[in-house]
Amino acid sequence: MCMLLRRPLLLLFVQVAVLAAGAPAQEARSRPNILLILSDDQGTVDLGACGTQDLQTPHLDRLAERGVRFTQFYAAAPVCSPSRAAFLSGRIPQRAGLSGNVDPNNPDAGLPPSTVTIAEHFRAHGYATAQIGKWHLGHSRERQPTGQGFDFGFGHLGGCIDNYSHFFYWNGPNRHDLVRNGVEEYHAGEFFPELCVDEAAAWIRARDEQPWLMYFAINLPHYPYQGHARWLDVYEGLPRARREYAAFLSTMDETLGRLFAVLREQGIDDETIIVFQSDHGHSTEQRAFYGGGDAGPHRGAKFSLLEGGIRVPAIVAGPGVPEGELRGQMATACDWFPTLCTLAGIPQPTHALDGRDLQAVLADAAAPTPHEHFFWKNGGQWALRLGKWKLIWNAQDTTDGRAWKREPGMRLYDLSLDPGETTDLAAEHPKRVDRLRKLAQEWDPTIRYELEEKKE
Amino acid sequence: MCMLLRRPLLLLFVQVAVLAAGAPAQEARSRPNILLILSDDQGTVDLGACGTQDLQTPHLDRLAERGVRFTQFYAAAPVCSPSRAAFLSGRIPQRAGLSGNVDPNNPDAGLPPSTVTIAEHFRAHGYATAQIGKWHLGHSRERQPTGQGFDFGFGHLGGCIDNYSHFFYWNGPNRHDLVRNGVEEYHAGEFFPELCVDEAAAWIRARDEQPWLMYFAINLPHYPYQGHARWLDVYEGLPRARREYAAFLSTMDETLGRLFAVLREQGIDDETIIVFQSDHGHSTEQRAFYGGGDAGPHRGAKFSLLEGGIRVPAIVAGPGVPEGELRGQMATACDWFPTLCTLAGIPQPTHALDGRDLQAVLADAAAPTPHEHFFWKNGGQWALRLGKWKLIWNAQDTTDGRAWKREPGMRLYDLSLDPGETTDLAAEHPKRVDRLRKLAQEWDPTIRYELEEKKE
Repeated sequence: MCMLLRRPLLLLFVQVAVLAAGAPAQEARSRPNILLILSDDQGTVDLGACGTQDLQTPHLDRLAERGVRFTQFYAAAPVCSPSRAAFLSGRIPQRAGLSGNVDPNNPDAGLPPSTVTIAEHFRAHGYATAQIGKWHLGHSRERQPTGQGFDFGFGHLGGCIDNYSHFFYWNGPNRHDLVRNGVEEYHAGEFFPELCVDEAAAWIRARDEQPWLMYFAINLPHYPYQGHARWLDVYEGLPRARREYAAFLSTMDETLGRLFAVLREQGIDDETIIVFQSDHGHSTEQRAFYGGGDAGPHRGAKFSLLEGGIRVPAIVAGPGVPEGELRGQMATACDWFPTLCTLAGIPQPTHALDGRDLQAVLADAAAPTPHEHFFWKNGGQWALRLGKWKLIWNAQDTTDGRAWKREPGMRLYDLSLDPGETTDLAAEHPKRVDRLRKLAQEWDPTIRYELEEKKE
Repeated sequence: MCMLLRRPLLLLFVQVAVLAAGAPAQEARSRPNILLILSDDQGTVDLGACGTQDLQTPHLDRLAERGVRFTQFYAAAPVCSPSRAAFLSGRIPQRAGLSGNVDPNNPDAGLPPSTVTIAEHFRAHGYATAQIGKWHLGHSRERQPTGQGFDFGFGHLGGCIDNYSHFFYWNGPNRHDLVRNGVEEYHAGEFFPELCVDEAAAWIRARDEQPWLMYFAINLPHYPYQGHARWLDVYEGLPRARREYAAFLSTMDETLGRLFAVLREQGIDDETIIVFQSDHGHSTEQRAFYGGGDAGPHRGAKFSLLEGGIRVPAIVAGPGVPEGELRGQMATACDWFPTLCTLAGIPQPTHALDGRDLQAVLADAAAPTPHEHFFWKNGGQWALRLGKWKLIWNAQDTTDGRAWKREPGMRLYDLSLDPGETTDLAAEHPKRVDRLRKLAQEWDPTIRYELEEKKE
């Protein structure tokens, strides 16, 4: 590991980026590796670097110190499958072709094979690609990782598993769910996150000069909360739900620490861009003890388009990225795809993305966000953010796990003054509401809120 | 192991039984040990000894060869908690005080502490007592095994667990559920059935002259179907649901084989009475792949008072029990308590049981059943059997896991001609219907089927 080399390498990569547009694959070695880490149901502020006081996440905090952390970063959906579809495709879920969670018993459900993933794009530009961990983007062969641009896939296809048996249990059938390149494989009794690091390490060690992109989707801290017993001891004083969640989150951090150590061991940590993001806010489901996570000042959690459901921890570090900086600009999971093309020096895809290149934001804390506005739609809710304003329709408030509730109709919030979305300003700003509604309809012309409102 | 000793020992035990009524505990050494094995969601004919053609259960088949197998044996309920309540108390669930499954999130639910269990009774007569495996009879301290007559308890308190993580996952919260004498204990990654045998072996090896009673409630083949991969290979040709179930059932049989080997190793297999029974019929729930088990000629499965829900494999072997015989008399899970008192030579409890002493039936295949009739009530259904006749009210037919259906009203079947309960004879036999209904009302005076019928 040679921290001093980082900035010269950055320059090298930027030069390569300029020179390499359309360059043949054999020149690819000078490109950085890409490690995309997606955590699962992690709360907005549940990271030491994000300000949590009662959780220990030293490895991710160190990652934040090595790169840029975002303070207003958004998942593209408040539930798993559509969030992942956007993360991998650079498009909002509706345009990626997967707007809800994948039904495990429907073999035809999932991310359409025609959707172009970041793996397909990077592979076309000379990258080796691997998926490790959770998928939840489809079960049929062509919808599995190896059908969606990954040379290698290892992990579970469903929405959650038991980490020791690797069984899917959310509903029936309760079945084993661990596959390698589409073939079932048994590791009964072995802790899944550790298995994932072992697989990642083996795959990384087997790489040669070819750059690689790995999507490491760790299924933590998603229920079941299966943190190591020693972490339960550490958090003994916390309330039950928080304690279980905290132990699992620290177990996750520890596991990612092992993965980062593999990069150091291989001498490639300063040649690897690491992205870290949660797929959406923490869960307040009964299965999650009605919620052990923390959205800070925000309302909402998983399943909600209120801030707590979609505003997530996000970090990027590595070559081309400043060290130890914060960025307050609005940014989204759709942005990784175009941003990483720039950072890696490969051409942007020719089809339209909803994501925007964050390169200017990374370079300059004063740069404007590339998103004047952004749009979300999920589970009967939709929302649009424009600057400090957020218009939200039919919000589902999932803050209290024992009493989820709909907030029917249209509300307008000023996030700069009211991060908790408590004071509806729609009546005071009818023209602004109208403008935001029209922008929303440009994203999704099927929105006809006036009609829906009359039905209430 | 000395099979030749069995009959002399039998005589000895019968003599002791006659002499020992009210004898002090120090004389107890001459009494047999009792091993009560309860399997979980095992189908009516799913045992080699019961006639299955496609499953391998050599250890249980050998047990049947060593003792008596019943062909018309009934669980007292078609779901877990009430069936176990009856098995341990000798009373039908309504009189044991637990007529439905225990809600895992209600600390006050469970078998009432005032209910006298077979463990309490045998302990009062000099036995050491242990519970190992599944409980599902309550979570509060006084409702746990050590509050219900067991000196020692090891296992899970809920209705099902993952066998590798020991997490409860049927609904939320998804939590760890493994306790030893009321204290949580972690064995992450270790296969629960093997852990149970290890615990049983250690406890048995630590016994001295004191006789013991162990309730070994193996949570197999209850979903999740987690049979060893080598058994999945053995059953590769079977349909998916049957294959998963079969692999798990053979894993169970193998596990019980290890337990039986402990008795042989300790030289006590001919001093130990072994009871084996399923808690009710196989599951056709979605979680169970809509049903991998087999009820043979019968309709119904778990959750049904049709024969497939309550007619279960049952074996008793050991001192006082003939070898390699079948008994066709109606017998029930409530009968073990009084029967074992007789076989062990300890006094019957002074309170009323619904179970009857099967000693005469064990001794003579021509003896009449001690149950002229028996009564079940569960989940809006009730049934009464009298001889070959079965009257059933509002039956829930769970045969097809994808289409459970109610059969409203009162039906009468002749089980001797119609084991599948297909031909309703109620209209032909109104007086018989009336007599059976009155008998049912003697068991439960709250039954007012005429009123219920009008509400339909």
